[in-house]
Amino acid sequence: MAISWLTQPCAELNETARTAALARQGQLTKPPGALGRMEDVAVLLAAWQGLEQPSMERVHISVFAADHGVAEECVSLFPQAVTAEMVRNFARGGAAISVLARQLNATLEVINLGTVSVVEPLKNVRDERIAAGTANFAKHPAMSEAQCAAALQAGRNSALRAKQQAGQLFIGGDMGIANTTSASAIACALLSAAPESLAGPGTGLNSAGVTHKALVIARALSLHEVAADQPLEVLCSLGGFEIAGLTGAYIAAAQNGLPVLVDGFISSVAALVAVRVNPAVRAWLLFGHTSAEPGHRRILEELNAQALLQLGMRLGEGSGAAVAVPLLQLACALHRGMATFAEAGVSEQN
Amino acid sequence: MAISWLTQPCAELNETARTAALARQGQLTKPPGALGRMEDVAVLLAAWQGLEQPSMERVHISVFAADHGVAEECVSLFPQAVTAEMVRNFARGGAAISVLARQLNATLEVINLGTVSVVEPLKNVRDERIAAGTANFAKHPAMSEAQCAAALQAGRNSALRAKQQAGQLFIGGDMGIANTTSASAIACALLSAAPESLAGPGTGLNSAGVTHKALVIARALSLHEVAADQPLEVLCSLGGFEIAGLTGAYIAAAQNGLPVLVDGFISSVAALVAVRVNPAVRAWLLFGHTSAEPGHRRILEELNAQALLQLGMRLGEGSGAAVAVPLLQLACALHRGMATFAEAGVSEQN
Repeated sequence: MAISWLTQPCAELNETARTAALARQGQLTKPPGALGRMEDVAVLLAAWQGLEQPSMERVHISVFAADHGVAEECVSLFPQAVTAEMVRNFARGGAAISVLARQLNATLEVINLGTVSVVEPLKNVRDERIAAGTANFAKHPAMSEAQCAAALQAGRNSALRAKQQAGQLFIGGDMGIANTTSASAIACALLSAAPESLAGPGTGLNSAGVTHKALVIARALSLHEVAADQPLEVLCSLGGFEIAGLTGAYIAAAQNGLPVLVDGFISSVAALVAVRVNPAVRAWLLFGHTSAEPGHRRILEELNAQALLQLGMRLGEGSGAAVAVPLLQLACALHRGMATFAEAGVSEQN
Repeated sequence: MAISWLTQPCAELNETARTAALARQGQLTKPPGALGRMEDVAVLLAAWQGLEQPSMERVHISVFAADHGVAEECVSLFPQAVTAEMVRNFARGGAAISVLARQLNATLEVINLGTVSVVEPLKNVRDERIAAGTANFAKHPAMSEAQCAAALQAGRNSALRAKQQAGQLFIGGDMGIANTTSASAIACALLSAAPESLAGPGTGLNSAGVTHKALVIARALSLHEVAADQPLEVLCSLGGFEIAGLTGAYIAAAQNGLPVLVDGFISSVAALVAVRVNPAVRAWLLFGHTSAEPGHRRILEELNAQALLQLGMRLGEGSGAAVAVPLLQLACALHRGMATFAEAGVSEQN
């Protein structure tokens, strides 16, 4: 399986701007390094934007929704109907990510890549259903190659829309009952990890539920025999449309110089697929929040990433990334608005 | 040493509002607990404000500045003149906390409790100098009882001003060259801890500098022989005017039902003194950020507190708390703005 755009080069970071921002940080009225990661974020944004003094005003959030055939293995506490019901909730403004998008003055679009049932036309919801959910990957490949390519392309299109609207940050979100099972299975395949080490409670399974989920994943892994170095095959066999959408969005964002703030477990697994397909994507990813879903730490480690926040959230939808956006904005404000030692007439250290 | 107002009762939290908020969280369209600490924050704010649906709009920041006699023991990299220079920088808007206050639309006042040099009148700076800095506590008590009482009262007055202006959150900040030495000494006395276990780099000492700082603290502790169960005596002997100001502010805030978001190491040591003087203060404290100053973890542990953020900041000024304010605002927005399962027609878990 080869889709030529996926491996095209990513944009370069602007090292001149990075160096200038780093120098500015050293002149601001504070001990060197005293703003910790807020300094790192400002410098990274400078390198991303090619500006010594970056800003963070236009945030784009794309939530990808899709159903999972593996839901029939009883791996979630919630009925599958919730995926479509939540699409309606996103559109009406009642979901967590809807509230956060309003508060952040962010653009929010929902891309329905395949709920089981058809959803009536809704404002800010794009009906791009590929199928009525994926196939049950405990028995069959989740997607055909053509379906996987379509989902990747839908993600790419969302990043291109964000870029076209002059977005400064791309956040991808996920909604799909049973999608922690799919994401855990992908992670197991890519990391050659045991299912019991990565399967977690998702929306709230008890320990018996987690054990069952790990067994379903183990069965799928032995059925498909996917190779860790074939990320697209892994995605096709075990993925969800929304996970493939996120993967395509991250790759296209990096290719187009659009920085990404990655959300939690599902999104980070999509990011891992993206980086395995095209390693240069990594330079365009910042991570918002370490999920309470236990497998997330392992994925972050693999990506050499430390998320900004750790608040015990485990909702998906892009919510963990959205909650971190004010940190980026405050980092820019500090970087731009603080006086230098010279401007303020403050003595430097002895 | 006894100052009667310090031990007067604190306000009660509203348990009815807490229960109602908790019930509302259980009905919002998300798996139970999936917003992690954002849920806890919303519920705590409900109990503080006595409202099922709290808000967070009016934030008050008081930065207390003062010099420390112990600076003559060469425990800081920065010259003592920086304290007064930073007071000017706060007033002119160039300091980190000035920028953050603007971004958060927060009220910012600076209370000069005792810089070595007189500072000319400045906008939003209150000249309440008690003395030209404390005495060097490695040789003498840092303050007289009357000076300590005045600093506590100045802090109390700042909390009362915030309350009078209908503030919904009090953030105290600190500025004072050598004040990590003072705060570490207080912490050692209150926790019966060894100086080398709590002294840290402050604005950036190397390991030889930290060792010297710990020796200065050890000398002071053996000179004063203060008892761990006499927090005001500890404060008088080893404190700074700004630390006493923060202590008084926290106690008065709790007595007047004004919630506090505590900043980093210096502020948390003041919070520890406040809680030792009047244990009911604890219920009105939330902690914004775990400082990179290593002793902070030990203080948070003693206060049974987990800060919201951990970004490697170590600046003081109230900056770590200020950076956490958007989390409180987003927690309120989610709590208020999300739809319930019934409102959204979303199925609950099986």
